[in-house]
Amino acid sequence: MVTYRPTPGVVTDALAELLERFAPLREGSLADYIPQLALADPDDFGIALVSMEGHCYQAGRADVPFTVQSVSKPFVYALALSRLGLEEVTRWVGTEPSGDVFNAISLEPRTGRPANAMINAGAIATTALVPGTTPEERFGHILDCLSRFAGRCLDVDEDVYASEARTGDRNRALAFLLSSAGTLPGDPSEAVDTYFRQCSVRVTAADLAVMTATLANSGVNPVTGETVVSEEVAVQVLAVMASCGMYDASGDWLLRVGLPAKSGVSGGLVAAGPARFGIAVFSPPLDVHGNSVRGVAALRDLSERFGLHLMRRPVQLAPTVAPTVVPGTGPADEEVRLAARGFLDFTAAERLLHGLAHGGPESGGRVVLDLTDATGVDPFAARLLRAALARLEGSGRRTSVVGGEALARDAGPGSAGFSG
Amino acid sequence: MVTYRPTPGVVTDALAELLERFAPLREGSLADYIPQLALADPDDFGIALVSMEGHCYQAGRADVPFTVQSVSKPFVYALALSRLGLEEVTRWVGTEPSGDVFNAISLEPRTGRPANAMINAGAIATTALVPGTTPEERFGHILDCLSRFAGRCLDVDEDVYASEARTGDRNRALAFLLSSAGTLPGDPSEAVDTYFRQCSVRVTAADLAVMTATLANSGVNPVTGETVVSEEVAVQVLAVMASCGMYDASGDWLLRVGLPAKSGVSGGLVAAGPARFGIAVFSPPLDVHGNSVRGVAALRDLSERFGLHLMRRPVQLAPTVAPTVVPGTGPADEEVRLAARGFLDFTAAERLLHGLAHGGPESGGRVVLDLTDATGVDPFAARLLRAALARLEGSGRRTSVVGGEALARDAGPGSAGFSG
Amino acid sequence: MVTYRPTPGVVTDALAELLERFAPLREGSLADYIPQLALADPDDFGIALVSMEGHCYQAGRADVPFTVQSVSKPFVYALALSRLGLEEVTRWVGTEPSGDVFNAISLEPRTGRPANAMINAGAIATTALVPGTTPEERFGHILDCLSRFAGRCLDVDEDVYASEARTGDRNRALAFLLSSAGTLPGDPSEAVDTYFRQCSVRVTAADLAVMTATLANSGVNPVTGETVVSEEVAVQVLAVMASCGMYDASGDWLLRVGLPAKSGVSGGLVAAGPARFGIAVFSPPLDVHGNSVRGVAALRDLSERFGLHLMRRPVQLAPTVAPTVVPGTGPADEEVRLAARGFLDFTAAERLLHGLAHGGPESGGRVVLDLTDATGVDPFAARLLRAALARLEGSGRRTSVVGGEALARDAGPGSAGFSG
Amino acid sequence: MVTYRPTPGVVTDALAELLERFAPLREGSLADYIPQLALADPDDFGIALVSMEGHCYQAGRADVPFTVQSVSKPFVYALALSRLGLEEVTRWVGTEPSGDVFNAISLEPRTGRPANAMINAGAIATTALVPGTTPEERFGHILDCLSRFAGRCLDVDEDVYASEARTGDRNRALAFLLSSAGTLPGDPSEAVDTYFRQCSVRVTAADLAVMTATLANSGVNPVTGETVVSEEVAVQVLAVMASCGMYDASGDWLLRVGLPAKSGVSGGLVAAGPARFGIAVFSPPLDVHGNSVRGVAALRDLSERFGLHLMRRPVQLAPTVAPTVVPGTGPADEEVRLAARGFLDFTAAERLLHGLAHGGPESGGRVVLDLTDATGVDPFAARLLRAALARLEGSGRRTSVVGGEALARDAGPGSAGFSG
Repeated sequence: MVTYRPTPGVVTDALAELLERFAPLREGSLADYIPQLALADPDDFGIALVSMEGHCYQAGRADVPFTVQSVSKPFVYALALSRLGLEEVTRWVGTEPSGDVFNAISLEPRTGRPANAMINAGAIATTALVPGTTPEERFGHILDCLSRFAGRCLDVDEDVYASEARTGDRNRALAFLLSSAGTLPGDPSEAVDTYFRQCSVRVTAADLAVMTATLANSGVNPVTGETVVSEEVAVQVLAVMASCGMYDASGDWLLRVGLPAKSGVSGGLVAAGPARFGIAVFSPPLDVHGNSVRGVAALRDLSERFGLHLMRRPVQLAPTVAPTVVPGTGPADEEVRLAARGFLDFTAAERLLHGLAHGGPESGGRVVLDLTDATGVDPFAARLLRAALARLEGSGRRTSVVGGEALARDAGPGSAGFSG
Repeated sequence: MVTYRPTPGVVTDALAELLERFAPLREGSLADYIPQLALADPDDFGIALVSMEGHCYQAGRADVPFTVQSVSKPFVYALALSRLGLEEVTRWVGTEPSGDVFNAISLEPRTGRPANAMINAGAIATTALVPGTTPEERFGHILDCLSRFAGRCLDVDEDVYASEARTGDRNRALAFLLSSAGTLPGDPSEAVDTYFRQCSVRVTAADLAVMTATLANSGVNPVTGETVVSEEVAVQVLAVMASCGMYDASGDWLLRVGLPAKSGVSGGLVAAGPARFGIAVFSPPLDVHGNSVRGVAALRDLSERFGLHLMRRPVQLAPTVAPTVVPGTGPADEEVRLAARGFLDFTAAERLLHGLAHGGPESGGRVVLDLTDATGVDPFAARLLRAALARLEGSGRRTSVVGGEALARDAGPGSAGFSG
Repeated sequence: MVTYRPTPGVVTDALAELLERFAPLREGSLADYIPQLALADPDDFGIALVSMEGHCYQAGRADVPFTVQSVSKPFVYALALSRLGLEEVTRWVGTEPSGDVFNAISLEPRTGRPANAMINAGAIATTALVPGTTPEERFGHILDCLSRFAGRCLDVDEDVYASEARTGDRNRALAFLLSSAGTLPGDPSEAVDTYFRQCSVRVTAADLAVMTATLANSGVNPVTGETVVSEEVAVQVLAVMASCGMYDASGDWLLRVGLPAKSGVSGGLVAAGPARFGIAVFSPPLDVHGNSVRGVAALRDLSERFGLHLMRRPVQLAPTVAPTVVPGTGPADEEVRLAARGFLDFTAAERLLHGLAHGGPESGGRVVLDLTDATGVDPFAARLLRAALARLEGSGRRTSVVGGEALARDAGPGSAGFSG
Repeated sequence: MVTYRPTPGVVTDALAELLERFAPLREGSLADYIPQLALADPDDFGIALVSMEGHCYQAGRADVPFTVQSVSKPFVYALALSRLGLEEVTRWVGTEPSGDVFNAISLEPRTGRPANAMINAGAIATTALVPGTTPEERFGHILDCLSRFAGRCLDVDEDVYASEARTGDRNRALAFLLSSAGTLPGDPSEAVDTYFRQCSVRVTAADLAVMTATLANSGVNPVTGETVVSEEVAVQVLAVMASCGMYDASGDWLLRVGLPAKSGVSGGLVAAGPARFGIAVFSPPLDVHGNSVRGVAALRDLSERFGLHLMRRPVQLAPTVAPTVVPGTGPADEEVRLAARGFLDFTAAERLLHGLAHGGPESGGRVVLDLTDATGVDPFAARLLRAALARLEGSGRRTSVVGGEALARDAGPGSAGFSG
């Protein structure tokens, strides 16, 4: 278990300023269909941000516990994907936005599947997919998984659980509907009971920021360093959050905020900047879509203010690479040096290699790939660079690599071709 | 007008390899609801990729002309957004995925708007929003805009236009429906006629790659250097493509390919890597969703092979920044030097500043921000860095910046606060 | 052309009393989507009833002309059925209630047909089915047919027609939608224009009562005596009016009023008592379903007050028939006399014959069927009676019929069996 | 308890002929979603008809017991209407055709009610409306009511009940959905269990014919003579059967067969001829709508062959009434005699009175209403006749009635006016 130590500084200042700006916003109303949730303090307002290095920033009541509710959905979906794989999970739960409200009674016409794992029907099916021979074992896996995402042991708010169980007839309807359509594994009563327990797990905004940062960080909890799910699963979950996470306002959210997100009826709202950060807001009053009013306003403002929109990737126009020609005694003696700076992905590798296309040495010449100042090479770029070197060798140039540990590291069978 | 000069090399090799892999795929069938489209050669198969530096790569029949059809939608949407702004355009056309097929007869229950600009109803409304006192003037703006996205003068395939006009009763139905709902400005017959002309504009895969690269490049055509639309508009269009571009398969596409995209009934398919590339495939046979069979297969493969998924941002875990402490004669004399490498966005700025939180000099000490090796600073990061320096000065440290042109460049009124 | 001569007396008194009761009802509002209709006088209120003998009763402004609008639908449907037959017409237009509003944009999922001929989409398709080589010829047939239903030459209100043509984009949308789905014969623009003319035909409440009485009277205009459509067609039209005539309030109407009916946006409302009467009300203010407020209230009251509900058939419990035994010298000489009173349908014939089952004469005895006091025998009952007589003869009884012209009249080939 | 004694004769012959005609029809398949139903004998085929006098006709396996399933719906609806009245019942269950399949998961948008009591959701709500302090008491009322409709004590098939309870998740889903929408009184688990028991009540085709004849006979069981429900309730149930009884084929059924009807998944199908007969067919194989294949074919044929269509009321064109003028010594002495034959409803009364309008005696003359040969006068007609007599007296004529017991019988306070 980890205790977060919030970091003071300008990021914290920015979060505090955000709270100050939106605290006066007094719209929305508390969820009342679960009576226990109507007891929340509408003035609770907290925000937390966790970076890929595990830096934790927070402001306001980011340590107030509340039940996770629908914010649990992406994390339990991640658990199901980890255990069963995407193909098996999508046999039971779709991946399309439904255009419907969160508790819509609709299954896909042809398949009988719920549209996606972010609406209640899909979340109940997802919960039922978690392996386990008893309900206790199944819920044990879920609680353990949520805890590993959070980096500390979470527990259940038994009062809220009891309240949900008493008033959850619509979710029971969904479970029986799925069961009758053959798209719910196991017993429907048990599935919905486990789902109620899952929704009643107690978290703080700080927890949710760590959990979401773990998804953004390719599945590795940036605070504890634990690999909770694979990169593949983390990417899949973020993609489904991007298209379906905000129910029937998902398109508008992706347009205006531009981050994969998920909200819950207790006032939690999380958003991920892939490879950048996880962020969470807690403020109980909800809008008509069931999203936290202050949470939506704060994240929208934050995204605009700090350029976090997914479609507004940091532009890297400055030439981070440039070929240098070292003239020899003749063309065959010429040396072209390609020096890379920063991290090399597909885009950077393309940029690096582009110079060779029109300015490479003549046959007999030499190409030096200097990776000394490169901070890293991703496997996709490595594959491209190795192919380029092989191509040069094949056409009579000599090649060498300086500082190329990153490049060598990923070399595997067939790594000279694109097919590898 | 520009003639693209495809660049040989490993990227071209990769594209050629892709064509080879999927050319044998003989599924799907030609669109037949526009008779002229049924005359296409099912074996035509081309692909093109354009980088942010305007590097053009292509393979196969990337120079075969075909009509742009629905691939025109994001670009005309960009035109409408440029002229009228998001708020006015969303009064007429929504931004939510509809979960429906491309030519769905459905308007939003409360507003009467079409769900989004990527389905036919929304595209017709978008076309009608383009200013112009005559149909000719309106279409002139559209053709000019598409041409500037492509970097060359495009024209209309009059045979296809005539064929569409003869068989376009469903689109006429949509136009009259919108008109009767009060969600179509102007005359419905004229709107649909202009839309038919827009769909009949002739392009090549190479054109489409440049057009899409322009969206990915914040609205600047990377080949011609012309700013076609603002960064804001480009971001908005990419976001709507991400959530709605692939009709009722949009969620699955975002999950498995992870790139904003748009397909057309003539076999065109484009995808954008924001700040990275634009890509286009052309292959006429379509699947049941109306998407190019080979196009979908090729882009899915390319995304996996080169790690292009939006949620799989190049991980930059290597510490690109590190504080160095230069001890002085006493604490008040100490100097902490923060040296940045690479491009600084919000995330990198946070990382850079984090060191100060626990390891900054005591009061009286000195902080040097060394941006010599930084390749750039985005305005959001600049704002954060300036705030941090102001905070340090305010607490009695001395600060200085080395190589900070990028930082200074964005400084404006109130730029020391986050609110600027 | 006929001039109706309203008949004074208690029926007229009852209608006048009805007007007096509901004239003060000031709810509802004038249709405004056709501007010309908004000019109607909201105080116009008339009612007319026509019996199967052509007796015409009326009260209030039953002679004020107004445009027929949707009340034309059942009559043009009758025309199409007459010309093409039910099987051909149902290839294009369904017969199920849609549960939708009158101008719903919905076609049947599998067939692409409109749900029924009483909603606009189905009515436009029906109009297009009317044979004719030119639009003028087709509309000529329609106007002629409506006139024969009314028993006088009707004409078109050209101002309303022009107003509809200017504002009818939703109907145009429907026509193009049908055309694109392949469920509209001919040109959509022409079909919708003819439909606008059809809706603009001018009628009075008195006309509509005669028209509806013609449907109730098996297709024979009870005033002129002309057979306008066959009994089969009249039955079909009444059945579709019963299930679909009142749009999304059809079920409630059948429950509470219990008569096949049709309403129009100009304030007309007709209802039929099969083999009993046709009735029409005219009062322009409409409720949210688009039905005349006073019309609905008046017909509901009338139905309750006079027991007109279709499910409340006049009970005929009194034994209209009774076997009489005339003893002979022995059993073989016994005569059983079956004397019928009133009109004989299946039900009455069954009742008549039932006595024979347990009380018929022994073999050699005699059965006399006395139809002297019967007012008529329908062909279905005649078939049953003939079969019974044949059965008696077959088992050794002698039979004879007194006053059996009605029985003989329908005797045809194979008329002794039920299969005839 | 009553033992039906089927009556031989031509009606029985007609039913036997019907069975013979459709027995070879080997389409459709057994319901399999309740495993026990899949054990039915697909060759079982029986038919029964009961007249308003309680005459019972049957052919084939009309005494084979099977579970009533959805055919119970109209009868339990009648029970709920009897206990609570139409206004209270329609607060919970609508009266509109849904256009949906029998087990549709859809509630009315605004009210959250199920569309009608003939689909499963509405039937479950109806069952829950039956008063009772315990589940046993509630089911006791239901079984008692069904038994009184049938005229004998019915019981439950415990095997089918157990089978339904095991596999009824879709119905459970409906119950929980209703409960969550606030449109199910009481506990959802209990409601659905009671519904399963109700569906498992064992009947024969002969039973169902008596039950349906009771509805057709204004609520009076024609065999036992017991008044099971009021005429008002019987009319209401028949109307809802007419518009909603055959699920999404209700419109086609009303068009082609023209009788209120209800089918069940075990192969039962009933139809009512109001004031004429109840009929039931049993044949297990079902079509895609869930209706008995042979049942539908047989009833359609029967309706055509015997003219039973509701819109094809027996035509009574023969003048059953005629005024006779008995000249006196002067006009003031003239006597006009109106002699009625047959049963007098609104229509016949109008016909009778019409003669007076143009041919009544002058003031001082005398009108004699001769009802000697009338078989009955319904209260609506009586009211009209009394009003006419009062009108004549008011204008100086003398009036008298001969054989007018029926007329007098209904005279009550205010009976001289229409408002009574």
